[in-house]
Amino acid sequence: MGKCVVVCAGEPCRLDKLPGFSVGEGDFVICADGGLDFALAHGLPVHLVVGDFDSSACTQGQAKALGLPVYEVPSEKDDTDTMLAVKLGLERGYREFALLCALGGRLDHTLANLCALAYLKGQGASGWLYGRNEQVTLLENETLELPAARFYGQGDTPAMLSVFAYTEACRGVTLEKVKYPLQNYTLTQRFPLGVSNELAGESARVTAGQGQLLVMLVQEEKRN
Amino acid sequence: MGKCVVVCAGEPCRLDKLPGFSVGEGDFVICADGGLDFALAHGLPVHLVVGDFDSSACTQGQAKALGLPVYEVPSEKDDTDTMLAVKLGLERGYREFALLCALGGRLDHTLANLCALAYLKGQGASGWLYGRNEQVTLLENETLELPAARFYGQGDTPAMLSVFAYTEACRGVTLEKVKYPLQNYTLTQRFPLGVSNELAGESARVTAGQGQLLVMLVQEEKRN
Repeated sequence: MGKCVVVCAGEPCRLDKLPGFSVGEGDFVICADGGLDFALAHGLPVHLVVGDFDSSACTQGQAKALGLPVYEVPSEKDDTDTMLAVKLGLERGYREFALLCALGGRLDHTLANLCALAYLKGQGASGWLYGRNEQVTLLENETLELPAARFYGQGDTPAMLSVFAYTEACRGVTLEKVKYPLQNYTLTQRFPLGVSNELAGESARVTAGQGQLLVMLVQEEKRN
Repeated sequence: MGKCVVVCAGEPCRLDKLPGFSVGEGDFVICADGGLDFALAHGLPVHLVVGDFDSSACTQGQAKALGLPVYEVPSEKDDTDTMLAVKLGLERGYREFALLCALGGRLDHTLANLCALAYLKGQGASGWLYGRNEQVTLLENETLELPAARFYGQGDTPAMLSVFAYTEACRGVTLEKVKYPLQNYTLTQRFPLGVSNELAGESARVTAGQGQLLVMLVQEEKRN
């Protein structure tokens, strides 16, 4: 089974700069409202469109005329379009998620998308959020190996690696093969000790014990 | 006693659009490294500069030549420049903080600044983060009244009000005088139920019980 790709309406990510990311045969692509514009512009397959078309340049009629399956939702609802897309992907059995254009737009939407990572984890699934210069995932009682390619995907300079406790504390945080290693450390939400680390080898290894840990790669973009 | 203003190096905020914000006689302004550029460009008083001058256009020598008090820090340290500025403000007795240009730059710095709000709360202090289009604070066992002026400060359209659990759960969340009220609700980090609310009166009232609650006002900017 492939992964579920949710295309959000945040700052457009650069598909050619997403290390290791591609849309394959078995993948299921859901556009969360305004994300449809990005998907159409970049030639992504579209398997489902979710939303009330309040943030897309495309109207519901146009989407239907294009033959796109539309999951209609009322404009006043408890779920954000992204959360609804995530739930629909889970219902279809997907356990691996990639949320494109999920960061860097409105800060409230960015934080809501961090919630989506925690929601996925609670459902036994996992996900990555991709922004223009950022990649974010969430760990709980597990180890993640981050190969060097992930640090070099989105720009000229290597990404900085940052980890944040997402629950009040995350115990057993271990960072290996990085400039500032940590060993079985209890990271809290009250102190950003895990900011701005650097790769120091072929791959970095991040372990989270009890609690949840956000893992973030951020590259500085050279803008002319 | 006035407040402590920490000028950070994120996306520049618009001083003329910060509702109710001004730098008064009793205020103490600390520039966190690159924040010095913003403070000098906008004629803010500078009472202390913190950092290793790795992100400021100004060199340490220039800062000293301008007669600015510089708190020197090593470039490899556990504190971010902003956290160090916050600690120095607390040491001087300030309990009310405003962090300017604290959002909208690198996402890791933005999240680290959310940690700073939680750190302040743990020290019996409180703070607001200001970005170009965002204002964020953190509540714990308290009620905040948000007058309409705060919703209209930074742009043409009224701000959206969002609340997020910052601890795993925040109990007793009550939202009054808003379009989608909540009464004594337990908000969790796994579901962004508190996104995109709207003012529905002269002021909105937000109450957080046990746990911590991020309160965020975000305006959509009309860019031409």
